Amino acid sequence: MINKEEHLRALEDTLAYFNKASIVLTEYEKKQIEIADFGLNDLRHTGLQLITFVNTDRVCAKEMVLFPRQTCPEHKHPNRNGIPGKEETFRCRSGRVYLYVEGEKSQEIHCKVPPGSEKYYTVWHEIILNPGEQYTLYPDTLHWFQAGEEGAVISEFSTNSDDLSDIFTDDRIKRIPEIDR
Amino acid sequence: MINKEEHLRALEDTLAYFNKASIVLTEYEKKQIEIADFGLNDLRHTGLQLITFVNTDRVCAKEMVLFPRQTCPEHKHPNRNGIPGKEETFRCRSGRVYLYVEGEKSQEIHCKVPPGSEKYYTVWHEIILNPGEQYTLYPDTLHWFQAGEEGAVISEFSTNSDDLSDIFTDDRIKRIPEIDR
Repeated sequence: MINKEEHLRALEDTLAYFNKASIVLTEYEKKQIEIADFGLNDLRHTGLQLITFVNTDRVCAKEMVLFPRQTCPEHKHPNRNGIPGKEETFRCRSGRVYLYVEGEKSQEIHCKVPPGSEKYYTVWHEIILNPGEQYTLYPDTLHWFQAGEEGAVISEFSTNSDDLSDIFTDDRIKRIPEIDR
Repeated sequence: MINKEEHLRALEDTLAYFNKASIVLTEYEKKQIEIADFGLNDLRHTGLQLITFVNTDRVCAKEMVLFPRQTCPEHKHPNRNGIPGKEETFRCRSGRVYLYVEGEKSQEIHCKVPPGSEKYYTVWHEIILNPGEQYTLYPDTLHWFQAGEEGAVISEFSTNSDDLSDIFTDDRIKRIPEIDR
């Protein structure tokens, strides 16, 4: 897990991205921002910063920040007890996002896989999202995404979000909720 | 129904609100913006401007604009064939929103009901949403909302949206999809 100093730096950077994209958060929400390092302690390569606006049984909405070339690692949202898994739409608000999903490998690949993690990335159908562009992922579909050189702000519109049920290709990853700092 | 000239003016104003709030739309989306006058032909008093980003069987997300003191009229989303009706979260992105829902009447009411429509407004529990503030409405709950003096941009995160099933208090209202102009 990243240390307190790195956590604070990431938090400041995240707020700066939201501010630049004119996304207003309440003071309470600012304290709820999650810095996810996925247990790999290599945040600037593998990580995600996010605020969850709402997460009921039926609907979830988040605003996410990726730092330059930072990667949200490959995973999928399986069906749970006969209930379809999470469906999610990613909408790029600023910057650029390279999204990789199951399907034919794209001829040109614009990302750089986090060093040392190459074997944990297995899907290579590339979708590029510029501001205003979006893509909907249905349940049980492997995917991962990386920001371009300027980082990115991404809205996620989805069904209920239950991080604990996510399946990551990288078995070193533990997606556990943060403890209070 | 409003005429073509008024429609174009409303469209330009809507794009200006999105632009000021740094909400980027694709060229395709700009052509999909809906100007809803609810069949009352009094858009600047009773109306709503919106773009639907996604609307699947499970998830819907919209970005909406209200002009200064414009009102989205009172309605509810009933359960449909045993399936719970629409659940929706309104998040104020810019400006101010006065939202009215079922419950105890608030001591101070900050809106001005559209003239001539007073009898079609029956719920008076006031919730004020400033930028970054939001409210979740569960199915079958009467509600209506109005922007403050500066207008407002509002995100809506919800379950599937089916305008045709909405029930409006004002029986003059017809919420029909726009025809191509």
